[in-house]
Amino acid sequence: MNGAESLVHTLLACGVDTCFSNPGTSEMHFVAALDRIPGMRCVLGLFEGVVTGAADGYARMAGRPAATLLHCGPGLANGLANLHNARRAATPIVNITGDQATYHRPLDAPLTADTEGFARGVSGWVRTATSAATVGRDAAAAVQAARTAPGQIATLILPADTAWTKGGVVAETLPVPERPRADPHQVRVAADVLRRGERTLIVLGGDALTEAGLALAHRVAARTGASLTAMGSNGRIARGRGRVAVNRIPYPVDQAVKALGGFRHVVLVACRKPVIFFAYPGKPGSPVPDDADVHVLARPEQDPVDALARLADEVGAPAASVPDAGPRPEPARGAITPESFAPTLAALLPEQAVVADEAITFGRGFFPGTVAAAPHDWLQVTGGAIGGGMPLATGAALGAPGRRVVNLQADGSAMYTLQALWTQARERLDVTTIVFSNRKYQILLGELANVGANPGRTALDMMDLGNPDLDFVGLARGMGVEGARADTCERFADLFAQSLRMQGPFLIELPT
Amino acid sequence: MNGAESLVHTLLACGVDTCFSNPGTSEMHFVAALDRIPGMRCVLGLFEGVVTGAADGYARMAGRPAATLLHCGPGLANGLANLHNARRAATPIVNITGDQATYHRPLDAPLTADTEGFARGVSGWVRTATSAATVGRDAAAAVQAARTAPGQIATLILPADTAWTKGGVVAETLPVPERPRADPHQVRVAADVLRRGERTLIVLGGDALTEAGLALAHRVAARTGASLTAMGSNGRIARGRGRVAVNRIPYPVDQAVKALGGFRHVVLVACRKPVIFFAYPGKPGSPVPDDADVHVLARPEQDPVDALARLADEVGAPAASVPDAGPRPEPARGAITPESFAPTLAALLPEQAVVADEAITFGRGFFPGTVAAAPHDWLQVTGGAIGGGMPLATGAALGAPGRRVVNLQADGSAMYTLQALWTQARERLDVTTIVFSNRKYQILLGELANVGANPGRTALDMMDLGNPDLDFVGLARGMGVEGARADTCERFADLFAQSLRMQGPFLIELPT
Repeated sequence: MNGAESLVHTLLACGVDTCFSNPGTSEMHFVAALDRIPGMRCVLGLFEGVVTGAADGYARMAGRPAATLLHCGPGLANGLANLHNARRAATPIVNITGDQATYHRPLDAPLTADTEGFARGVSGWVRTATSAATVGRDAAAAVQAARTAPGQIATLILPADTAWTKGGVVAETLPVPERPRADPHQVRVAADVLRRGERTLIVLGGDALTEAGLALAHRVAARTGASLTAMGSNGRIARGRGRVAVNRIPYPVDQAVKALGGFRHVVLVACRKPVIFFAYPGKPGSPVPDDADVHVLARPEQDPVDALARLADEVGAPAASVPDAGPRPEPARGAITPESFAPTLAALLPEQAVVADEAITFGRGFFPGTVAAAPHDWLQVTGGAIGGGMPLATGAALGAPGRRVVNLQADGSAMYTLQALWTQARERLDVTTIVFSNRKYQILLGELANVGANPGRTALDMMDLGNPDLDFVGLARGMGVEGARADTCERFADLFAQSLRMQGPFLIELPT
Repeated sequence: MNGAESLVHTLLACGVDTCFSNPGTSEMHFVAALDRIPGMRCVLGLFEGVVTGAADGYARMAGRPAATLLHCGPGLANGLANLHNARRAATPIVNITGDQATYHRPLDAPLTADTEGFARGVSGWVRTATSAATVGRDAAAAVQAARTAPGQIATLILPADTAWTKGGVVAETLPVPERPRADPHQVRVAADVLRRGERTLIVLGGDALTEAGLALAHRVAARTGASLTAMGSNGRIARGRGRVAVNRIPYPVDQAVKALGGFRHVVLVACRKPVIFFAYPGKPGSPVPDDADVHVLARPEQDPVDALARLADEVGAPAASVPDAGPRPEPARGAITPESFAPTLAALLPEQAVVADEAITFGRGFFPGTVAAAPHDWLQVTGGAIGGGMPLATGAALGAPGRRVVNLQADGSAMYTLQALWTQARERLDVTTIVFSNRKYQILLGELANVGANPGRTALDMMDLGNPDLDFVGLARGMGVEGARADTCERFADLFAQSLRMQGPFLIELPT
């Protein structure tokens, strides 16, 4: 058994049975091992950003890590942006990157690069394998690291000779450390704060946004009068009818400051103190009021559902039924606007859909506007690195088979990782992609306006996706995904319903 | 004047007048400054890999650096692969990356990443600006660093507040250090070796592959009986009728070893000792025979044309006319194969074309097969990071206006940075892209065969670009580039001639 074979056997033994891949020459022995040993589902991406973003989406839905298979150096580099997003979602990923053979690296061949240096910035755990005999153990340690709460990226770098040399040993699964519980002191402090009756906001992140976490947070809020919100960017939120509805902290700085204005206390559950995405001259870096006290009920690695349950008991919160979200909206008619699209989507979203949201400016109102839709999960591009949406949708479809994935997709960011459509076609994934085609980087036009002055030709050109216009239906067809364009809500509704009836992917372009 | 304005003024004063860009929020003040200050040509790429690869192609042709404008963290990460290629070509690039405001960075907002860590692996020079007052000086230092021989990537990281704060100062141009000359001892040693009459190979890289460098190398070879070769991967080679023809060291290990077999001496001119791209079990890491002596006439930073001229004098080499390349081939007829395509291209290539070559396996014979074409320049993807070809072609068209760029493009690598076509359409660049669509990662199938055993379904699927087939003509059209498919050399010749008559880009897909 060579090192690569011990790696594959160990991954399978540790419960990793899906591998998103884009291999190169230095990974050929790993590919050969995947070929010889049955049990691993290998999914090809035509670009590494697709591979890593899909691994993120997969784990968010499956609740366990996939492996990646990336080419050395620049191959890993191409996947970094979506690893950055996955890191911000605390997604477990066993990120396997090939590399030059240990004895070839000093020769500095053209593809030789600082693989470990590239990996450090996005990984919680990095190890370069040193021998075939220990690769199995390295793989088990990588899976253990990836699954350690709250979840992280574990990068295992695999020099080619550690893969091809004989003497591989299959390693035993290493135990995943039990998720730490909040300290009793944390729970008592939060309860004391809540009992005071001062204006208090409970901020939920991570697994506090599961159906169970939300229900417990609602119990606490109902008993104490506290308000609830989710963080601005979240890996996965349980939503729709029967789930407790929460807003998210808005992206624009002024709205975020307003949303948190007047709170005397902020209690953090599985998240860190909220901050604004970017600094702006003369504006605060955090939406939390300066005079508010910040308390931590559960740090990101601590079990937030357990902490919320204990807090509910501590404040004597009785069982509370989930507030009714109101009637499911009716589909709108006529032109597609942010205001008409949200109720239309809410009306049509199927049960247990998975929404992969990279709709950006056009889609800011979609989240509040779909609260009364059928139960679904909502995934966000957590790290702000655009190009997350389509890969997330791809991986989510593999991580949640039998559920429809709806990718709400801005046009500018779609162009970053459009190759994901091909993987959707090849794997016949049930993904409906909705491209909001406003033909500009709208978010930047807003930011530029904040900078002041009327933008001139140079600035406008840098934010303009027209001249020439992108034809997303044509681009999708070029990768084997059928699609169509809709100018009205009625036409969109027809196309969307059609996509739900078919097996496999479909793309709807909405010129907006 | 704010920091961003001092940056733009300084860049212009230093001769940098082209900026390949894909900005984000943290770069808005830089964008506003580019908008207010006339003189900088800004070229938008829809993905950072396009931006950095185009900056590489531009500088290879223009002989001076462009600037980039990249978004913080993940934006830079998306551009790393083509910066890696540029680093291997020793291309000068002033690589400007935004970042979080200095005081916002400690808050670790979602997009915050290890920008400097990402930059280090590809840059010869990295600096993070610390104040608006010093950004101008930082920019001048970056241009100086980029232009220091043999050329390198100088990354200037621009925290948002250093851009927006008042007090910017336009800096004076810093002198580019004179290119060092080879030491007299280096020239004498090389001459002594060549005079011995033992089998000697002169290996040329960098600027030794200019028309002047090649002519001098030929004089030396004609006098001493030495052989000439170019390195395997080169930034730019002057080729075609009237230029001295050299082969390149082959990519496959066995062919490379064979090509260098029997040489007793290897003389390096503006390159380092040749190495094999990857290690293979039981095969050497370098094609240079173990018993050969390696001599350095000019290190990469030393002036190779000067060194070759002095060497020619030292060995008493008389003027030597450039050997005739033979008649220009006739276009072939019938099916498109590697053997039929090369003479067809050689017959049709216009005067002073620029060839951007990422044809990979299908194109291995194109370089030797086009030696008798009209004079042209040949650019390669120097670092082995695929996805270089289309961006290189895009930048080369901007760096060499009035010359036709011909992009020889494999299908697998085309999918990495296909967005370059949109920039070609927007800027109406004279690029003819020829996609060799074999619908597989052919190079990996070869590598897998070397690993032994018959590949099974899993391995074949990871190297198969079919199922579904990619429609490159449709993909190009979706980005505003017209194209057509050709099944025969005659049809290709017609389409190619048509593309030469038009202004702007055109794509020809060749199913092979």
